[in-house]
Amino acid sequence: MIEFLGISAGVLTGVSFFPQAIRVIRTKDTSSISLATYVAFCIGVVCWIVYGLVMNLPSIYLCNFVTLIPSVVVLRQKIINRKEDQS
Amino acid sequence: MIEFLGISAGVLTGVSFFPQAIRVIRTKDTSSISLATYVAFCIGVVCWIVYGLVMNLPSIYLCNFVTLIPSVVVLRQKIINRKEDQS
Repeated sequence: MIEFLGISAGVLTGVSFFPQAIRVIRTKDTSSISLATYVAFCIGVVCWIVYGLVMNLPSIYLCNFVTLIPSVVVLRQKIINRKEDQS
Repeated sequence: MIEFLGISAGVLTGVSFFPQAIRVIRTKDTSSISLATYVAFCIGVVCWIVYGLVMNLPSIYLCNFVTLIPSVVVLRQKIINRKEDQS
């Protein structure tokens, strides 16, 4: 039962960023999204992936790799929008 | 060294949501933030906290409790804004 909870936690936090990435891809709007949040979060997720690989913990590096994909999509659009705002 | 990486990952992903919460508190703007993302993320984080408590893993439940606070702030404001939009 408890392992099921751990897997659910990993899947939920892993896939939770996909709706945000889809919304950003559709609307290109990142006005209320914090750049600092996504920079720190992406670095943290990369650290988790390296940690999981070195410690050979597939649940850690797989879940975080899933999380990294949509997070980078949001971060990329936020950086693009910021550059456009400044130009 | 590897434990330092794990702690850094936990701290970074843990505190990364504070800038987003501060921005939302200051601006009340959640227009480009996905409700589905924060609902799924908060449920996932609560699952991690229960998992960490049951498995007696302080690094898991403490990091995720730190993450839960700003995430709930953002989720709360998103729900408030949605209700105002609908009324």
